[in-house]
Amino acid sequence: MNKVAIVDYATTKFRKLTDKSVYELACEPAMEILRSSIIPANKIEGLLFSSCSNDLYTGAIASEMLGINPKITCRIDNLCNSGTVALSAAYSYISSGLCDSILVVGAELRNSPGSKLIWDVSRGQFTSPIYWASVFAKMHMREYGTTEEDMGAIAVKNRSLAINNPNAMFNKPISLEDVLDSRKLVEPIKLLDCGALCSGAASVLLVSEDIARTLDVQPVWIDGIGQQTNCASVAHAIPGVFKNGSSKLAATHAYEMAKVNPSDIQVAEIHDAFTIMEIMAFEDLGFARTGKGASYALDGDIAVNPRGGILGSGHPIGATGIAQVCEIVCQLRHEAGIRQVGSSNVGLVHNLAAAGTSATIVILRS
Amino acid sequence: MNKVAIVDYATTKFRKLTDKSVYELACEPAMEILRSSIIPANKIEGLLFSSCSNDLYTGAIASEMLGINPKITCRIDNLCNSGTVALSAAYSYISSGLCDSILVVGAELRNSPGSKLIWDVSRGQFTSPIYWASVFAKMHMREYGTTEEDMGAIAVKNRSLAINNPNAMFNKPISLEDVLDSRKLVEPIKLLDCGALCSGAASVLLVSEDIARTLDVQPVWIDGIGQQTNCASVAHAIPGVFKNGSSKLAATHAYEMAKVNPSDIQVAEIHDAFTIMEIMAFEDLGFARTGKGASYALDGDIAVNPRGGILGSGHPIGATGIAQVCEIVCQLRHEAGIRQVGSSNVGLVHNLAAAGTSATIVILRS
Repeated sequence: MNKVAIVDYATTKFRKLTDKSVYELACEPAMEILRSSIIPANKIEGLLFSSCSNDLYTGAIASEMLGINPKITCRIDNLCNSGTVALSAAYSYISSGLCDSILVVGAELRNSPGSKLIWDVSRGQFTSPIYWASVFAKMHMREYGTTEEDMGAIAVKNRSLAINNPNAMFNKPISLEDVLDSRKLVEPIKLLDCGALCSGAASVLLVSEDIARTLDVQPVWIDGIGQQTNCASVAHAIPGVFKNGSSKLAATHAYEMAKVNPSDIQVAEIHDAFTIMEIMAFEDLGFARTGKGASYALDGDIAVNPRGGILGSGHPIGATGIAQVCEIVCQLRHEAGIRQVGSSNVGLVHNLAAAGTSATIVILRS
Repeated sequence: MNKVAIVDYATTKFRKLTDKSVYELACEPAMEILRSSIIPANKIEGLLFSSCSNDLYTGAIASEMLGINPKITCRIDNLCNSGTVALSAAYSYISSGLCDSILVVGAELRNSPGSKLIWDVSRGQFTSPIYWASVFAKMHMREYGTTEEDMGAIAVKNRSLAINNPNAMFNKPISLEDVLDSRKLVEPIKLLDCGALCSGAASVLLVSEDIARTLDVQPVWIDGIGQQTNCASVAHAIPGVFKNGSSKLAATHAYEMAKVNPSDIQVAEIHDAFTIMEIMAFEDLGFARTGKGASYALDGDIAVNPRGGILGSGHPIGATGIAQVCEIVCQLRHEAGIRQVGSSNVGLVHNLAAAGTSATIVILRS
C-alpha cells in the first residue's frame, strides 16, 4: 500500500449568508491551494467534490472553473461525513496508483437539502437531526448520569476555542448560563447545544509519497482510515449506539491501520454537531471509558477541537469533514498560530453522518 | 498495486416507467447478487451508489435496505459516466487495501435531473444533450464526409442487437428508412439517432485477488482504467474534440495500464447515446483511423455493443456505465447465451459524460 500525504490545505470563512454558488464557494479554498503552487495546476490529476447540494457534475464544473484538467472527477455525498469519505476515496485513488495527486474540495450552502433527513420514515415527521440528538442525550443522561450542565460545558468550551479561529462563524464567548437559558428546542437540547448550519468550503491537496518527498513543504501522512456505516435510520442506530456505534467500529479500524492506540493521539477534531455527540465521541474513540465522556471533557489530556469544532465554527455539511482535516494538518505542521496546541505530531479526525449511522475516523501524522 | 476482480453482475430490465423509488430499483440487481451468495452478505465491505437523482445518502440507505453493514458507503455522481467512475473508486478502495469487497450499484429513474445540463451557460437555452450531438455530427460530416445514412446505420445495428437482450428497452428491429424518416429533432439528429432516457439499475461485485482466488466463479480482472475530464462546458469541448477528446486521452491511459493495444480488444461496449458518438468512439479508441469511424461500423472486427448499446437498451444515466460493465463481464465469462460473441477474453467499456467532457475507459480480462 503506497503512502499518501496531505501537502496543502485551505478553508473559507464559514458564514451564514453568501451570494455565491456552491461552485464559486468551492473555488475559494481550491484557488488558494492552486496559487500556492506546491505542485503545478496542470499536474493535478483528480478533483473530488464533496457536497450535499442538488448540483450535479460538480467535480467537472469546478475543474473547469479552476482551469485544471484532471483524470478523475466526481461528486461524493454521504451526508455529514461526505468530506472525509471523499478524503478516503482520494487516498485510495492515489494509494492504488490510479493517480498521483488529488484536490479534495468540500462546499455547502446553508440551505442545503442535506439538512433534512427526509428518507428516514422511522423518524416520522421528525426529519431534523435534532430529534436523534435528543434521544441520545436522554439515553446518556439516564444510563450514565450525564447532565444538561455537562452538555452545556461542551458548548462553552468550543465557542471559547473558536475565538482564536478567524474562519469560525462564532467569535464571542458564551457562559454556561447562556447555554442553559437558551431556548429549549427538543427536550433536553437547547439552542446553544446545537451546531449551526452555515455556508463554507474547505480543500486539501493529497499526493503520493514519491511526489511528497520532492516538495519543499512538510507532508502530513494519512496513517489510518476507518469507516463504518451501520444503517441509515435512527430506529436502527439506537439499540447499539453505546456499544457498537459506527464511530467505535471505525475507530478500531483506523487505530489498527495506523498502529496506534487512543493514548497516542495528541490533537483531535470531534464531530460535535450537538454537545452530546462530543461526550459520546470521547467514549467511542477510547479517550474515556463508557459513561465517562462528560468528565473527560473537563480533564482529558488530548487537545480537542482547537478550531472550535462544529459548535464554534459552524456546519457547512459537505465541507465539515475537510475543514476538520485542515485543522489537524495545520496543528501537525505547527502553523496554527495563537490556537496552536503544543507540538503535536499525531492527530485524529472524527466525522459522522445522520445520527452517527455512518462514521469516518482519519489518523494523521507529521 | 493489488489486483481487483469482478465476480458477479446483474441488471434490471430497463423500462420507461416504474413505480419504484431509485432505492427500490437499486435493490433489484443488488439483491440478485446477494442471493447468489458468492460471498456472504455480512462480508461485503463497501456499497458505492451511482446516481444523478436528488436523493442523498443513497449508499447508506441502500445498505440498510439490503441488510448489509459495510465499512464504506457513498453516492457518486459524474453525470453519464457516474457508473464507471464509481467502478474506478471501488477498484481503488480494494487495490489500496482499505477494503476487500465492494458492491457497486447504479440506479436512475427516467425523469432524473441528470438529463438536463443546466449549469452550462455556454449552451445558452440548449440544456439538452442533443444540441452538442448536433454540433459534433455537423463537424464530423463537414470534416470527414460522414452522412446521415452512416449514423442511421448505427441505430439499425444496435437496435437489432438489442433483440437478443431480454433486459433491453427496445426489442424490435428498425430499418434505415425508419431512422431517416423519424422526426428530425435538431439538424441533422433524428429521433432514432438518440438513446432514450429510461429507468433501470445494474450492479457488480468487486473483490480483492485474495478473495477472488478462493471463489468458485470465474473472475473477470480489471486490467486497465483510464479517466479524463477535459472540461464541463460544450464550448470548451468543441475545439479539440477530434484530436484531444477525453475518450482519446482516457483510452491511452487505460491501454497503457492494461498493457494492451486497440487490436487486442475483442468485445466492447461503446457509449452510443447518439449515433454519431459511436462513430467518434471508434476513432478515439484507436479502432479506426480519424475520419474512418463510419466505415469501421460496417467492417470492424471488434464485437461492439452486443447488448444493443444505449440505443438499444435505453439510458438510465447513473446505471449505464455499470450495465456496460455487466455486459462485458457476461461476454468474457461466455455467459451471454444467444448474444455471445465468440470466446472473447479481453473487453473494453467506453463511458462518457456531458458532451464527452469526461470519459472513462475500462479494460477487462477473463
